[in-house]
Amino acid sequence: MPISSTALHFDAVVELDRADPLAATRELFVLPEGVRYFDGNSLGPLPRSSRERVAETVRQEWGQDLIRSWNLHRWIDLPRHLGARISRLIGATPDEVVIADSTSINLFKLLSAALDLRPSRRVIVSESSQFPTDLYMAEGLASLRRDSAGSGPELRLVEPQDLIDAIDHDVAVVCLSHVDFKSGERRDMAELTRIAHQRGALILWDLSHSAGAMEIDLDGCDVDLAVGCTYKFLNGGPGAPAYLFVARRHLSQARSPLWGWFGHRDPFAFETSYRPASGIDRFQCGTPPILSLAALDGALDVFDEVDLGVVRRKSLDLGDLFLELVRQNCGGMGLNSISPERERRGSHIALRHEQGYRIVQALIERGIIGDFRAPDVLRFGLAPLYLRYVDVWHAVRALRDVLETRSWADPQFEQRGKVT
Amino acid sequence: MPISSTALHFDAVVELDRADPLAATRELFVLPEGVRYFDGNSLGPLPRSSRERVAETVRQEWGQDLIRSWNLHRWIDLPRHLGARISRLIGATPDEVVIADSTSINLFKLLSAALDLRPSRRVIVSESSQFPTDLYMAEGLASLRRDSAGSGPELRLVEPQDLIDAIDHDVAVVCLSHVDFKSGERRDMAELTRIAHQRGALILWDLSHSAGAMEIDLDGCDVDLAVGCTYKFLNGGPGAPAYLFVARRHLSQARSPLWGWFGHRDPFAFETSYRPASGIDRFQCGTPPILSLAALDGALDVFDEVDLGVVRRKSLDLGDLFLELVRQNCGGMGLNSISPERERRGSHIALRHEQGYRIVQALIERGIIGDFRAPDVLRFGLAPLYLRYVDVWHAVRALRDVLETRSWADPQFEQRGKVT
Repeated sequence: MPISSTALHFDAVVELDRADPLAATRELFVLPEGVRYFDGNSLGPLPRSSRERVAETVRQEWGQDLIRSWNLHRWIDLPRHLGARISRLIGATPDEVVIADSTSINLFKLLSAALDLRPSRRVIVSESSQFPTDLYMAEGLASLRRDSAGSGPELRLVEPQDLIDAIDHDVAVVCLSHVDFKSGERRDMAELTRIAHQRGALILWDLSHSAGAMEIDLDGCDVDLAVGCTYKFLNGGPGAPAYLFVARRHLSQARSPLWGWFGHRDPFAFETSYRPASGIDRFQCGTPPILSLAALDGALDVFDEVDLGVVRRKSLDLGDLFLELVRQNCGGMGLNSISPERERRGSHIALRHEQGYRIVQALIERGIIGDFRAPDVLRFGLAPLYLRYVDVWHAVRALRDVLETRSWADPQFEQRGKVT
Repeated sequence: MPISSTALHFDAVVELDRADPLAATRELFVLPEGVRYFDGNSLGPLPRSSRERVAETVRQEWGQDLIRSWNLHRWIDLPRHLGARISRLIGATPDEVVIADSTSINLFKLLSAALDLRPSRRVIVSESSQFPTDLYMAEGLASLRRDSAGSGPELRLVEPQDLIDAIDHDVAVVCLSHVDFKSGERRDMAELTRIAHQRGALILWDLSHSAGAMEIDLDGCDVDLAVGCTYKFLNGGPGAPAYLFVARRHLSQARSPLWGWFGHRDPFAFETSYRPASGIDRFQCGTPPILSLAALDGALDVFDEVDLGVVRRKSLDLGDLFLELVRQNCGGMGLNSISPERERRGSHIALRHEQGYRIVQALIERGIIGDFRAPDVLRFGLAPLYLRYVDVWHAVRALRDVLETRSWADPQFEQRGKVT
C-alpha cells in the first residue's frame, strides 16, 4: 500500500480491491452468501478443487476401483506426493516433507527424534504461550521417556524474554511456533535457528499458523525439524492430516518412535521386525485417511499459480488496514490491539476486550466470522486468497456498531468450545 | 445351510440367495459392474449412505457453515458418537469406545497404558503371525520405554502353540488378533482372556479382521483393551480412522502416552499443562479428520438394522460353500486350503498356491477381486452384507478356469505392493 493514517473512505478501500493482484483467486473458493470469513486461520473455506477431488475419490476411486486404487490412483504415494506439494510452500525439498497423522502426533515423533539426535542433552525448551497441544505432547513424551528413578527428558517452559538464556548446554531441542496462535506474533526463524545451533541445540518450528499465508524458507534458515497443520491457511478441510519436515542432513539418523507399517522399509513384505524406510517415509505410521488426503490434494491446486510473496504483502496490507480502521472507528470503546507491528505480524489480527467472547458472537450474528481465545482475545484471520479489503471495512464497521450499541450484552451468548 | 458334500449345482446356489435374509442389504452399496468383490476384508466397498454423508459434509458443513460446524453439526462429538455406534457392534458400552488416529497409534497408546497398569511386569506377549504393524508398534514402544541401561519393557514373540506357556509372571499384557489376517483363524476370545487374567496379565485384542463380520462380546468376555480398523468389514472408507476400547474398570487408571489436546479435560481452556479427560476421551489426541469420520458415520448406517448373528451365519455358510466348491472343482491343481474349520474361521478364506500372486492377478482380470499375501496365500474375503452365494460359485469357477488353463502364467503379472 501503504495505508493512509488520515480518515479512510469506502471508495479508497474499493480501489485497493480493484488493484489487488490476488482478486481472482477468490473465485476458487466456495464462500457462503452473507458471510465475511475471518476465520481462515482456524478452518480454511472449501476450495472448489477440493470439492471436485473428494467427489471423484468417492465416486471413482473408492466406489468403482476399490482396493485397486492403492496402485491405480497411487493412494500409496499420496503422503509423499502431498508432502512434495507442501515442500514448495515452506522452502523445503520434496524428500524432506511427508503427510502423516496429526500435528500433535508429528510433534511427538520429531521431539523424540531430536532427543535421540542429541543423546547427551535432555531438555526440550518451549514457551508457555505455545499452542497447548505442542506443550502437552512434549510433556507426555518427557514423562514416557523418564526412567523409574525419574531421570530423563524434561520440558522447560519459559517466557519469550527468557528464551535465549534458557538454551543452555542441556538443551536438545527448542520447540517454537512460527506465528503465535493468540497474538499473531511472527518469530524470527533465521535468527532463533542460528542461536539454537550456536548452542548445540536443534530447533523444531510449528508452522500451523503461517504456512500458506507467507513465504517460509526452512532450508534457507537451516531449520532442523518442523510440523504443521493443513486445515488453516492451506484450506485442506476440517481436521485435515498434518505434515512434518526433517532436514535432509538428519534423514539418515532421525528415528520415529512410532514404528507403524507405513514407515517400514518394505511394508508389503509383512516382516516380523521393524526396519525403518530409508528417508522421510519412516515418519509415516498407520494407513492414512485417503478421503481427507484427497481434500488436501484438491486444496493445494489453489497454490499452484500463487506467489507467496504477493500473498504475504496482501496479508500485511489487510492487517494494516484493519488496525488503522479500528484506530479511526473504535477509539475509547475498551478495545486494545495486541497485534505486533507489520514486520513482526503473522496473518491474523488480535484485539482484546473484556467482553471478547460476546462481541465475537454478536459479529457472527452479523455475518462477520472471527473467533475468540480465552480469556479476552478476538482474532481475525487474514487469508489473502479470498478476503477483500472491503471485507475488512465491513468487519470494522460491524465491530464499531456492536461496541456502540453494546449489542453484545445479549444473554443468549453463552460461552462454548470451538476448535482452532 | 448346511452345504451338501455331493456335487453342487448352480440352481442350488441360486436357491441359497433366494432364502438369504441379508439379500436386501446389498442394495445399500455401490458395487461396480462386472466385479465380484472378495476383498472387503481389506477395503469395504462404498455404502450409498457414506457417499451422501460425505457429499453433505463437504457441501453444507464445510462449505456453508465453516468453523461453526464444530458446534452446529457436532463435529466435536463425532469421535464419541462413532465410538458409541461401534460399541454396539463389539459388545461394549458407549463410554468404552472412541474413534481416534490409526490402529497402529491406538495400539501404541493401549500397550503403553497396559504397561502402566501392571507396573511390576514388563513383557508384552504376542505371536509372530500377528499383523506386522502391531508387532512394530509394540517393538517401538518397548524400545522407547527402555532406559539407557537397556532395562524396561520387552516384546516376547511366540508361536501359537507356545502362547499359553509364555504368559508368565513377567507378562503385563497379551496382544492378539481376534482373526488372523492371513489364515483367517479366529481365536477363542473368552478362553484366552480368562487365561491371561488367571496369570495376572491384561489382554488387548485387535479386532480389525472381525468387527462387522460377526458378533463380538468384549464386555461379556471381560476383555481389558481392544483396537480395530474401520475400513474392512465396517466399510468406513480407505484409511478410515480407527477405534479403541478400554474396559470401564480401567478407565480411571489407564493413561495414554500421547497427550494431545483432544484428550485434555478442557481443550478449549488452552491450559499450559495437560490434565487427562475423565473417561475414554483421554485417548483422543489431535484434531480428527472430519471428512473421513463422516464417511464412517454414513457407513455405520448400514449396520443399524443388521443382526450380527445372522451376518455370522451367512459368513460361515459362504465359507463352507467356497471350500466345498474348491474341493469339488479344483482338486489336484496345487491348491491347499489353510482355512480352519467352520467354528474357528473368521470371515475370509485362505488358500495356498506357489503361483498365488499371479493367480490372484488373473482372477482380478476376470472381475473376481481377492488378494494375495506373501509368500503364497490367496485370500477371499466373505462380506455377508453384499456378497451372494452365486458370487462364490462364479469365483470358484473362475479359479478353476485359471488353474486349468494356467492363464496365470502370463508374464504381465508382476508383483507390486498393496494394502490390507
